[in-house]
Amino acid sequence: MTNSAQIKYPYFEEATSAEVVNARMGSDIDERFREVMSVVVKHLHAAVKEIEPTHEEWLAAIKFLTAAGHKCTEWRQEFILLSDVLGVSMLVDAINHRRPSGATPNTILGPFYVANAPRYANGANICLDGKGEPMAVSGRVVDTDGEPVSGAQIEVWQTNDDGFYDVQQKGIQPDWNLRGMFNATKNGDYWFRSVKPRHYPIPADGPVGKMLGHLGRHPNRAAHMHFIVTASGYEPVITHIFTPDCEFLDQDTVFGVKQDLIAKFQREDPADAASPDRSGAARWKVEWNFTLARAKS
Amino acid sequence: MTNSAQIKYPYFEEATSAEVVNARMGSDIDERFREVMSVVVKHLHAAVKEIEPTHEEWLAAIKFLTAAGHKCTEWRQEFILLSDVLGVSMLVDAINHRRPSGATPNTILGPFYVANAPRYANGANICLDGKGEPMAVSGRVVDTDGEPVSGAQIEVWQTNDDGFYDVQQKGIQPDWNLRGMFNATKNGDYWFRSVKPRHYPIPADGPVGKMLGHLGRHPNRAAHMHFIVTASGYEPVITHIFTPDCEFLDQDTVFGVKQDLIAKFQREDPADAASPDRSGAARWKVEWNFTLARAKS
Repeated sequence: MTNSAQIKYPYFEEATSAEVVNARMGSDIDERFREVMSVVVKHLHAAVKEIEPTHEEWLAAIKFLTAAGHKCTEWRQEFILLSDVLGVSMLVDAINHRRPSGATPNTILGPFYVANAPRYANGANICLDGKGEPMAVSGRVVDTDGEPVSGAQIEVWQTNDDGFYDVQQKGIQPDWNLRGMFNATKNGDYWFRSVKPRHYPIPADGPVGKMLGHLGRHPNRAAHMHFIVTASGYEPVITHIFTPDCEFLDQDTVFGVKQDLIAKFQREDPADAASPDRSGAARWKVEWNFTLARAKS
Repeated sequence: MTNSAQIKYPYFEEATSAEVVNARMGSDIDERFREVMSVVVKHLHAAVKEIEPTHEEWLAAIKFLTAAGHKCTEWRQEFILLSDVLGVSMLVDAINHRRPSGATPNTILGPFYVANAPRYANGANICLDGKGEPMAVSGRVVDTDGEPVSGAQIEVWQTNDDGFYDVQQKGIQPDWNLRGMFNATKNGDYWFRSVKPRHYPIPADGPVGKMLGHLGRHPNRAAHMHFIVTASGYEPVITHIFTPDCEFLDQDTVFGVKQDLIAKFQREDPADAASPDRSGAARWKVEWNFTLARAKS
């Protein structure tokens, strides 16, 4: 078990504490795990040395982690929430989805994706509960040279006008409300109807919600729609588009907003319609292209 | 809610990810909490950037934390174990107990301390189950000038010869086995009898034990006795002494061993005794002085 690193750091000393811990690893272990844990220990000790926590502060951290663990169930993942609100989920996503300039950026999948959404023809309305401000979405799937990608598949999901996904309101919303799968034409075109998305809070009744409160932060996600766009020969894209007028646009609590994902939501104002705004029948038009990067071979 | 830091970093970018997260804190929050969380986020993001985890590795970390949380009960604290085996507990202890040169170093209290141990006269034997190799401990409590500290109180606790504390074996060991409280004389002298301590494993049947396995580490603590020494006008000392011949001395799984806490354990070999070793009646003699630092006023 003893190795040369360990002989150099046999006993605990404050100055070399991380080296002492890392020298303890065995010689015959998974090399990636060694690398990962070395970095974890290095930064953990550096953070403790910078913070210089009191015993009580250390214990508060232990209790926070314990409460987060106890909050986790089959249906609730408090540590993923923690990762989300500390920007770690977006960072891991960014690291794993570096793309050529111009390609649509990736974002996190989020907890509300459900596979096997209904397949619709272009033009269908995915809003099944009739609530909210009508919206028409259309655009094209192109490659990084601007050429159309034919036969791409576009999957979309979003909250209803009350700020809930169908799976959060089973029995209240129609099944598969505001979810759909579309195929782009051979020119890469797609189009469908929906309603303007709304902001909504992440679950804030646990330790992470309490932490957000102490940080002076709110639990709201900026209003958005989710997309997965796939096409043979291209890297799949998991992404969002955001409404530009949401009050939480620059405060999305999971840091999902990227500058390049803020769409234009244009109010359709047909001259022949009588005061569409005042009647509550305003319509929104969104044009959005997805730019796919070629798959790495 | 919007402040100047936030305006500088409105949306997520990989390069400035930690700054984006920290800029989100409110202006009217506890300043110490702001400082602590800024450092946590900074090092968390730095670690993620250095590790570049895959999605699967990130999920493995989430699952590890969840399993650790689920292992915690009123009687089991898996996150403290995690803190212990990563050297964090010792580091926090060291940071909070920096002492003048020569003073007895502090160590962690550990989970097996119980208040209100029986008070004995010097010379008493704290071993109530008759197991193990007899040992005589004696020494003096002095200040950093080497002058005796009169009337110091010395509290001691340790495992029995099977490697368990009394509280781990209620009904098997006598209550208060191997625990005692002594008062030093006016010259600072103390002395008592016990048995030579044994190494023992920390609870290794949970996620932290599994992690230790993947790190090529064992769960054993080096053989030791615990002490708390207090005297009016001096900083209390929570400390260990370690046996020099324990096979785990340079591999204590919670990094409790400090060079200055390794005692001499001398075998008493009275010329007039018939083969004390072979009879199993070997006796050990330990001389150990505690050096107290004056309390900060």
